[in-house]
Amino acid sequence: MAIPHTDLCKLSATQAAELIRTNQLSAQDYAKALLERVRERDPQVRAWVFLDEDVIMKQARRLDELPMGKRGPLHGVPVGIKDIFLTRDMPTKYYSRLHAQDQNAAADSACVSVLRAAGAIIFGKTATTEFATMTEGGPCTNPHNCKHTPGGSSSGSAAAVADFQVPLSIGTQTGGSIVRPGSFNGVYGFKATWGTISTEGVGRCSVSADTPGFYARNVDDLEFVAHLFRLGSLPAEPVQKLSLIGARIAFVKTHIWPNAGAGTLAAWNRAYGLLAESRADVESLELPKRFASCSRWREIVVSEEARAAFLPKYCEDKTKVHAEVVSLVESTNLPSRKKLLEAYDGLARLRAEWDRIASQFDIIITPSAIDEAPEGIANTGTAVFCSMWTILHAPAMNVPGFFGKCGLPIGLQIVGARYTDVQVLQNGKIVGQLFNRL
Amino acid sequence: MAIPHTDLCKLSATQAAELIRTNQLSAQDYAKALLERVRERDPQVRAWVFLDEDVIMKQARRLDELPMGKRGPLHGVPVGIKDIFLTRDMPTKYYSRLHAQDQNAAADSACVSVLRAAGAIIFGKTATTEFATMTEGGPCTNPHNCKHTPGGSSSGSAAAVADFQVPLSIGTQTGGSIVRPGSFNGVYGFKATWGTISTEGVGRCSVSADTPGFYARNVDDLEFVAHLFRLGSLPAEPVQKLSLIGARIAFVKTHIWPNAGAGTLAAWNRAYGLLAESRADVESLELPKRFASCSRWREIVVSEEARAAFLPKYCEDKTKVHAEVVSLVESTNLPSRKKLLEAYDGLARLRAEWDRIASQFDIIITPSAIDEAPEGIANTGTAVFCSMWTILHAPAMNVPGFFGKCGLPIGLQIVGARYTDVQVLQNGKIVGQLFNRL
Repeated sequence: MAIPHTDLCKLSATQAAELIRTNQLSAQDYAKALLERVRERDPQVRAWVFLDEDVIMKQARRLDELPMGKRGPLHGVPVGIKDIFLTRDMPTKYYSRLHAQDQNAAADSACVSVLRAAGAIIFGKTATTEFATMTEGGPCTNPHNCKHTPGGSSSGSAAAVADFQVPLSIGTQTGGSIVRPGSFNGVYGFKATWGTISTEGVGRCSVSADTPGFYARNVDDLEFVAHLFRLGSLPAEPVQKLSLIGARIAFVKTHIWPNAGAGTLAAWNRAYGLLAESRADVESLELPKRFASCSRWREIVVSEEARAAFLPKYCEDKTKVHAEVVSLVESTNLPSRKKLLEAYDGLARLRAEWDRIASQFDIIITPSAIDEAPEGIANTGTAVFCSMWTILHAPAMNVPGFFGKCGLPIGLQIVGARYTDVQVLQNGKIVGQLFNRL
Repeated sequence: MAIPHTDLCKLSATQAAELIRTNQLSAQDYAKALLERVRERDPQVRAWVFLDEDVIMKQARRLDELPMGKRGPLHGVPVGIKDIFLTRDMPTKYYSRLHAQDQNAAADSACVSVLRAAGAIIFGKTATTEFATMTEGGPCTNPHNCKHTPGGSSSGSAAAVADFQVPLSIGTQTGGSIVRPGSFNGVYGFKATWGTISTEGVGRCSVSADTPGFYARNVDDLEFVAHLFRLGSLPAEPVQKLSLIGARIAFVKTHIWPNAGAGTLAAWNRAYGLLAESRADVESLELPKRFASCSRWREIVVSEEARAAFLPKYCEDKTKVHAEVVSLVESTNLPSRKKLLEAYDGLARLRAEWDRIASQFDIIITPSAIDEAPEGIANTGTAVFCSMWTILHAPAMNVPGFFGKCGLPIGLQIVGARYTDVQVLQNGKIVGQLFNRL
């Protein structure tokens, strides 16, 4: 190979796919280069909880032998898989002692199936917090500074992409498990509209909130994957190429704003300034007061659904489950039926209302996280700025571009109305180009 | 054993559990008796797609060896598992050629986990239609007359319980996959409120509709299982023991009523008469016209979610997937974004409205199916009378008690507001006692 492995690691998924498609790069050489990067970096980053060179190279070899006509759009592109997605050639352990001995799944989870069928190399399983539900961190560190958390729960998926160990990865978000690690690691992290991507074969926390999504270092890659999953296939108003000049842009602080730290505040002001300078029609949008109920209603719904989701784990062996999960299942401080239904129905009304508000703007920007990644890996940080959009079923994406006082990345979040995934991706690309121009 | 195996087969789950608990019956002897019944009957009923005597007897032996203090509430009770629930000691095949070679799962699905931890014997996997989504029947027949369908998609779970091969089984309902087979086979079939029981490890069709549930030959057994799954654990208005005298009972025909056949009509009138004679306050309730939109909205939402759910199967190998599933994934006749959101939000509004209506009655009765099981096993019949309640997230139960012109069972359906599972079960018991008194 003419291309040194350090350069191969920096390829985006679409670039790599193109080089492989045109026979300038083999799946095996690309995989070897990434493995080399993992070997150098994983002792520090610890993004992988399962990674087997033989399993990887077997896939790469099979792909290289495949005739041209049978190659899929992601042919030869390695993807990291959060360790709560079932995989038929790797174990799935949910960072849980209960599943520590689990073997390979009988079949791939829905997302892995789509990726594998598209020719992706299922590269390995990435670090998650316990059942993707705890904020207690695992061994994974932030590749920008190993003394800081990568965020969670999709810790390893964000860190591995940020660290050039794979160009793509998949994660899930129930609160802020995709967008927050995206912000902390300085990568694009996209969570789709709820219901558009199947969660079959994925560890469950809350059926109304759990949503899959993807990480990449640029938006082209995310658009490529979104297309594979048929996002944006509904007949809709055609998505026009947006110019920033005159674009209606809303900055939405939300009721969470008082939590914003200095880093997020600086990123916010800088972004506002950059967009205003670009002659966009920028405004600060205050949501109606009732959106403040989102946090409380979300807490009620997600807790109740999580209680149902973790009952089986609790029944199986509660001594092997985190104390907070045990407390949740054993809790006697439950909402009344009336309160629970008020939460379900209130959230359903807010979803429709949010769509109406969002339709008045071309681009909507809101914080991704309270600040850069905090020091320490024991805690993955807070999801406060993300969980509202997750339970509103809105598409959401972290756009990197800023840095905090320790020099760690800070992103801002692009959100949209339900089923405007394609627009959110496009908006993230435009805004990301502006944020990262310098 | 003093009790002949034919009598053991007729035990309810609670009766068997009590006999085993008091050392009057061993798990092994009970399992052997049921296996004997299966051997006699399965060549005709074909309820089981996987049943391995060794796997069953190994569980029974282990349970018999367990000290008293470690025994769960379902200790030694065999349960049939619809073949779309992952099981760690049996393969899961979804009646799909795509999964024909799949092996045992790495871990049990959520429901199986709860049952196994309670001491149940995971007896075998029961027949389903392809991915629990087709109405094209499998080999399973109606135990009352093998020339008739058992209904679907939880075909084997209903048939095995009706035929005294197991006292309990689990199924799922996306349209009418629990209640309809319940009616066709003459057993109680209960579908919980959406979100109360985890669908982790269950084949996906529609995330907004898929709901697990149970079959038994009496309501005590269903209450026992509902308790295991913590249904009814929210602090609510206390459920009072209901007397039929003066009870406010609504008969809800719904906009589907013109589909009711002679058998359902006769059952309806008989039930109405029996309840009126019991001095209940019975009335015919007409739902507001907008509930008629339920069918159309449900069709839109379920089709879109199913398109996402089956995309992975299609990508993996579309030649091994039913033509109707292929058509669904390939469809270009998709709803606009506006129509889809109108359906999601319209259904959310109807859920709240249904709860308000339901709260005005003690018991609500509606048809389970258009008539007794139709002749032939090629088609499992229609879910029209059930799918509305499923997408409204309402608890629903088939109560058997009537018979059609071919002498096959017909049931009626008890439905309730969301999170009134315990009341629906209690109501089904009272009404079932009345229907089956003669």
